[in-house]
Amino acid sequence: MPVRRADEVPYQEIGAAEKTYIQFLIPPDEGPHFAMRRITMKPGGGMPKHTNTVEHEQYVLQGRGQVAIGDEVYEVQPGDVMFIPAGVPHWYRNIGEEDFVFLCLVPNLPDEVQVLA
Amino acid sequence: MPVRRADEVPYQEIGAAEKTYIQFLIPPDEGPHFAMRRITMKPGGGMPKHTNTVEHEQYVLQGRGQVAIGDEVYEVQPGDVMFIPAGVPHWYRNIGEEDFVFLCLVPNLPDEVQVLA
Repeated sequence: MPVRRADEVPYQEIGAAEKTYIQFLIPPDEGPHFAMRRITMKPGGGMPKHTNTVEHEQYVLQGRGQVAIGDEVYEVQPGDVMFIPAGVPHWYRNIGEEDFVFLCLVPNLPDEVQVLA
Repeated sequence: MPVRRADEVPYQEIGAAEKTYIQFLIPPDEGPHFAMRRITMKPGGGMPKHTNTVEHEQYVLQGRGQVAIGDEVYEVQPGDVMFIPAGVPHWYRNIGEEDFVFLCLVPNLPDEVQVLA
């Protein structure tokens, strides 16, 4: 897999979220140390407050979203970079009228998700 | 650093390349396992054939480029994902009239660059 069109990668619905889909652009069995995923949140969609045991490195590609990291809520747009440390509660919400889309990279380590809301 | 605007991160010229700049969006001292960098190649710019001792996970944000990975040359555009395995020779060239911009993520491991061209 040297080059791949992201739009051709299958979308999977994220069960604990609303109107939110994940694509594994570079899955953990292809990238030796970390995985590249793309999250698409439809208008009205969001992910409830939760924690992960791994950190997230994220880059907004499209749309407008609210992202809470710990006690702070941020409004983000394309070109914004988010770092969510391991174990810190966070949530997302699409606050625009188009898809809210961002890359989300995580290390290839066991991840336990705990939904808090 | 929970949220950061990529456009506000300082640009550094890459010495071995032409008209090419790197930004450390999430530098290795902030991301515990891998770093998020953004590469901007001006029209006419490029990076010569080289190897790294670490793999690259990349996502094209803007413009049109040629990317060689091993013996294959690919033409890439926004939304294309590239995986460059550790040690494989690769080069880049902006073949458009606007900036060619892509994210390039690497693990936090020692990296030795060898220019081959």
